[in-house]
Amino acid sequence: MILTVTLNTALDITYRVKALRPHASHRVTEVTERPGGKGLNVARVLAALGHEVTVTGFVGGATGRSLQDRLRDAEGMSDALVPVNGSTRRTVAVVDTSTGDTTQLNEPGPLISPAEWSAFQEAYEHLLRSASAVALCGSLPPGVPVGAYATLVRAARAASVPVLLDTSGEPLRRGVAARPDMVKPNADELAELTGSHEPLQAMKDARRRGAHAVVASLGAKGLCALTPDGEWRAPAPDRLAGNPTGAGDSAVAGLLSGHAERLPWPDRLARAVALSAATVVSPVAGEFDRPTYEDLVGRVTVAERLGAA
Amino acid sequence: MILTVTLNTALDITYRVKALRPHASHRVTEVTERPGGKGLNVARVLAALGHEVTVTGFVGGATGRSLQDRLRDAEGMSDALVPVNGSTRRTVAVVDTSTGDTTQLNEPGPLISPAEWSAFQEAYEHLLRSASAVALCGSLPPGVPVGAYATLVRAARAASVPVLLDTSGEPLRRGVAARPDMVKPNADELAELTGSHEPLQAMKDARRRGAHAVVASLGAKGLCALTPDGEWRAPAPDRLAGNPTGAGDSAVAGLLSGHAERLPWPDRLARAVALSAATVVSPVAGEFDRPTYEDLVGRVTVAERLGAA
Repeated sequence: MILTVTLNTALDITYRVKALRPHASHRVTEVTERPGGKGLNVARVLAALGHEVTVTGFVGGATGRSLQDRLRDAEGMSDALVPVNGSTRRTVAVVDTSTGDTTQLNEPGPLISPAEWSAFQEAYEHLLRSASAVALCGSLPPGVPVGAYATLVRAARAASVPVLLDTSGEPLRRGVAARPDMVKPNADELAELTGSHEPLQAMKDARRRGAHAVVASLGAKGLCALTPDGEWRAPAPDRLAGNPTGAGDSAVAGLLSGHAERLPWPDRLARAVALSAATVVSPVAGEFDRPTYEDLVGRVTVAERLGAA
Repeated sequence: MILTVTLNTALDITYRVKALRPHASHRVTEVTERPGGKGLNVARVLAALGHEVTVTGFVGGATGRSLQDRLRDAEGMSDALVPVNGSTRRTVAVVDTSTGDTTQLNEPGPLISPAEWSAFQEAYEHLLRSASAVALCGSLPPGVPVGAYATLVRAARAASVPVLLDTSGEPLRRGVAARPDMVKPNADELAELTGSHEPLQAMKDARRRGAHAVVASLGAKGLCALTPDGEWRAPAPDRLAGNPTGAGDSAVAGLLSGHAERLPWPDRLARAVALSAATVVSPVAGEFDRPTYEDLVGRVTVAERLGAA
């Protein structure tokens, strides 16, 4: 199975309101809820692609129970979340139906105790034994050491499980130094990590810092990959109107599933770009539109050598 | 015991954010949750005054479980909520800590089935047997007949239990016709019920429509009462800066507890006004500040005859 780690899981709540006006009272016309946090989003896409997926991370409180109830109803995803005393956070996306704009309210995560962090590491090492690949995704909740991802990368490497890291800031910097198989920064994360705003230079620097392969997601420009096997560029298809929420997580799912299936790099990138684009055009935020994906995956052009960018 | 009915219970969630900006992403700095809906607010104040209180209404889903967990921790309140298939609604109050302003997002209630409404009526009639007074509070969730409060008022009168009705719109109009012992409209609700914006005329009309006693809450002007025993006016004390959320519910608690203790009307009104004012000045929305209440309750002036207003 493929393992995804979401240390800061969330219950993603979406409210639709007619028009959001600060300091007014609003009747919510529609409420939707689903398990959230980047690793859970990646897992949902992997399961939709037909992979056996196990999700882990922390879960707690009444919101955690809601999240697990919904996970139980989701096909193809096994729940290996580790219970904690604190309560799983909610995120509330308020969609203004008159403009389509979204206002986001994110609760902080629960405070994780040292004992809970130890219990997680033990569970994680056990799960690695049956994992074909692992993705470490998103922010750290309070209480988890900033070097957490470095520890988890090292454990995956010790267990010979390919590991992809998708996070930002200091947790990314420390995680990269532990030599993950892949990192997938966006332009901002890459610049923050390396100090360079020139993607090719920054990707080279990220590899020097420890990442075996770097796949940078450059928004509408698509993906660039710098790997031990070569360099590739996979531009995003044109005519992409929609909601970019979750497009990066879909790209991670494409890269990781391609890796697990031992596809060559160009095929992994084509899959990641097609999934990403199919997520942008999907009417449901964070899900991909299957006909769009199937149409695009054979048509994405992957060019060799980044210098040609 | 005193019974309070909240057909549209809620889990009231308060988020504090630095500054609310539409279409931006916000980190919530503080999250608080408590059982909500007008009848539950009334019950909390009654319990704080030392009364034995039972709460009923509908409860369901994961949010309902959270609400009941918190109710279990609250002293002096017995939970007689009736389970339903749908999920109890949440209300989210987003407090902008830079201005103190609040933006409110209210989920719709669960859809109540005819069988659930019947089960509620049966439970309610059973609870009335041990009730010294009952308050019927707030809006109706979808599926409950618009004449619901009229039905519940008639059942209370048949059981010889004094009944106070605090709602608005068509449910108020129909409920008043069933001859409740007391209604507590605010200025808008009274005008909507009677078509008159002149409080004394409107209160007389409300009595003609069926209410035995009418206590109108006129905001900063305080309370006016038109009853079979006489007319009174109890102005609000000066210097009331604060949050009016829950002030009306505290007034209901004051009126109902005074009724249960068979206090004369002026004492009931003094208690209601003092509780209301102590709620406005409380730093926690919907709770009353006990020292303020104890200071004010002996000092509120109650004038006889509304004509003198």
